[in-house]
Amino acid sequence: MSETWLPSLITETPQEGYELAVKLARKAVGMTQPDEEVRKLLRPVYAANPDSLTFASQVVAINFQTVAAANNYWRD
Amino acid sequence: MSETWLPSLITETPQEGYELAVKLARKAVGMTQPDEEVRKLLRPVYAANPDSLTFASQVVAINFQTVAAANNYWRD
Amino acid sequence: MSETWLPSLITETPQEGYELAVKLARKAVGMTQPDEEVRKLLRPVYAANPDSLTFASQVVAINFQTVAAANNYWRD
Amino acid sequence: MSETWLPSLITETPQEGYELAVKLARKAVGMTQPDEEVRKLLRPVYAANPDSLTFASQVVAINFQTVAAANNYWRD
Amino acid sequence: MSETWLPSLITETPQEGYELAVKLARKAVGMTQPDEEVRKLLRPVYAANPDSLTFASQVVAINFQTVAAANNYWRD
Amino acid sequence: MSETWLPSLITETPQEGYELAVKLARKAVGMTQPDEEVRKLLRPVYAANPDSLTFASQVVAINFQTVAAANNYWRD
Repeated sequence: MSETWLPSLITETPQEGYELAVKLARKAVGMTQPDEEVRKLLRPVYAANPDSLTFASQVVAINFQTVAAANNYWRD
Repeated sequence: MSETWLPSLITETPQEGYELAVKLARKAVGMTQPDEEVRKLLRPVYAANPDSLTFASQVVAINFQTVAAANNYWRD
Repeated sequence: MSETWLPSLITETPQEGYELAVKLARKAVGMTQPDEEVRKLLRPVYAANPDSLTFASQVVAINFQTVAAANNYWRD
Repeated sequence: MSETWLPSLITETPQEGYELAVKLARKAVGMTQPDEEVRKLLRPVYAANPDSLTFASQVVAINFQTVAAANNYWRD
Repeated sequence: MSETWLPSLITETPQEGYELAVKLARKAVGMTQPDEEVRKLLRPVYAANPDSLTFASQVVAINFQTVAAANNYWRD
Repeated sequence: MSETWLPSLITETPQEGYELAVKLARKAVGMTQPDEEVRKLLRPVYAANPDSLTFASQVVAINFQTVAAANNYWRD
């Protein structure tokens, strides 16, 4: 049905894991507001508001917890 | 009594797990505001507010932590 | 002293676990605002505000993490 | 120096664990606003605001995660 | 370079662990707003706002999760 | 492609782990608002708002959970 956008939580490096966390955070936004034009209009409002930026960072942090645990914190 | 909507936290793929996380997030909204008409009226307000979108993404992220742990992060 | 309302975190199914998470979320509200009449007055305000609904869903999600872990994610 | 208010995270039952989570949530409030008179004045404002009530419930939920894990979810 | 303020997450008692969680919460505030005079000016505003107090308690709760896990919940 | 900014979650000490958590929190802000001039303009607004400071501390706390777990809480 829908295309595959999340084949795995495993990444090679912590940095790629962080980028996956960003992707996970944005995915839910796109699912709630599917209109890309609207999202583009909201972006400048959003990116100029400090609390909105912190909020974005928070959601990335929560997703990064998941991705990091999945990768056993890239300890090996 | 109520119909079964959550038979299991186990999913085949991470992506299905993410979709389950979205479902879990929406379920509690529906339990607090059971009137679907009201929810439909709120949707456009909601979907045009950047912080509301981030907030929705956050709740998905929290639920995804649970689903991902349940599935042992789909490591195998 | 007080009546027993939380004898166990163990539930038969994930869905019952989710319902327990909702109960846990509401319990703290009742402990902060014990007057049921006031809570009833607040309900319509609350249920018509999208962010309030998301917030309610978030607290359920956090409690569901606890209940799901307690039940070993109903894996068996 | 200060009196002992948190000798242990272990409780007999889940319900006592939940009550300890409430205590942990309130403790930090008291440490930030030590004046009990001010806290009493704030209480009615707070208890009549739905989002404030949800917020209180959220902090209890986070503390309950800790207490529940400490008690191995009272599984035994 | 910078002085040592966090030599360990291990504490003797849960209560000391809670106090460390408070310290961790305040540290990040000090790193974002290093001017102590400004922080002192903000304190009364902050301490008279119920949601701000709850927010402070929430950050302590999150840090306490970390400290409690580090100490294996002071089970032994 | 992009430069390496997160080679590992492992740090020597808890304090370095906390500093890494701060870095993780700021990274997502920079990815959402890449214009450093804008971020500099927002900083004073942000740093004078108590709730914004608490919010910043919260995101550090979430990231510190991840880093601390990765380092097995620097127990050894």
